[in-house]
Amino acid sequence: MLVDDLVSCGAVKFGDFVLTSGKKSRYYVDIKKASSRPKILRRITSGFGERGIQCDKVAGVELGAVPLIVSYSLEYDKPFLIIRKGERDHGMKSPIEGDIAPGESVLLLEDVITSGGSVLRAIDMLEEAGAKVEAVLTVVDREEGGAERVSKRCAYHPLIRARELLARADME
Amino acid sequence: MLVDDLVSCGAVKFGDFVLTSGKKSRYYVDIKKASSRPKILRRITSGFGERGIQCDKVAGVELGAVPLIVSYSLEYDKPFLIIRKGERDHGMKSPIEGDIAPGESVLLLEDVITSGGSVLRAIDMLEEAGAKVEAVLTVVDREEGGAERVSKRCAYHPLIRARELLARADME
Repeated sequence: MLVDDLVSCGAVKFGDFVLTSGKKSRYYVDIKKASSRPKILRRITSGFGERGIQCDKVAGVELGAVPLIVSYSLEYDKPFLIIRKGERDHGMKSPIEGDIAPGESVLLLEDVITSGGSVLRAIDMLEEAGAKVEAVLTVVDREEGGAERVSKRCAYHPLIRARELLARADME
Repeated sequence: MLVDDLVSCGAVKFGDFVLTSGKKSRYYVDIKKASSRPKILRRITSGFGERGIQCDKVAGVELGAVPLIVSYSLEYDKPFLIIRKGERDHGMKSPIEGDIAPGESVLLLEDVITSGGSVLRAIDMLEEAGAKVEAVLTVVDREEGGAERVSKRCAYHPLIRARELLARADME
């Protein structure tokens, strides 16, 4: 199971954590620890692929989602788009790396969704570029409001929900 | 040929360009335009793989090298390390994303090498973490001094040299 993979590689840890938001949490997630291992990255990609979302391109926000979209791109033969973080219209850098044409459909991948702010900004940017965001898929949904906000915009599916991590924490 | 791929997707353009350094150039390179296309990314990865470098991990500097190392990681089953840009020891973020153990051998991939500054900093960081950098491979070597500086530290192979792009520019 993917949860076992995340725990065994240290991408999910159980204990008492204080998040950067100041909130307390019984678990900690860093998907980069998982995606840097090709075996686990392939499993995440298969999990995304099993949703069977049809799209022209696959997109994600730098840096955490980049390994996810590159793997998806190679496995399902879709060009990828990288959405840059930070201020828009800043200097020469395009806020979206990669070519996007009006009317193209996009699958947006994320590593962790909490309140959904980062992914909602990405949906806005892709729509402004004329794309249609078909769905958002994430490895972990922390169940802190993001699901509700993202679901209003497009299809949304997490591979793992916070409740599954908390159930696992109770077992440890 | 890889050069044809880079030209056809707009990753290499010919004309009169002024680089961010202020230098004039007869060609412009943005490998992200190539690596975002799975067919071309696979060709770049095969080109790197043909060098037959033995290593425990594959590494690269964010953001341009990340698609290259993820693809290499998946194709040759090596975990990857992302070397962050910017100031070191800044806040909580580790300057190297991914696990590195002393004594491990690392293959360092780059999209474009000009003077080699970014890649030399990456070699320093990996060596300080106890790793041995076996080789540096780059898609394009702009032949502006990077090759000489990097070659003093480890094996070095570009897939394409500036002279090949300039010869192509003369044909256009």
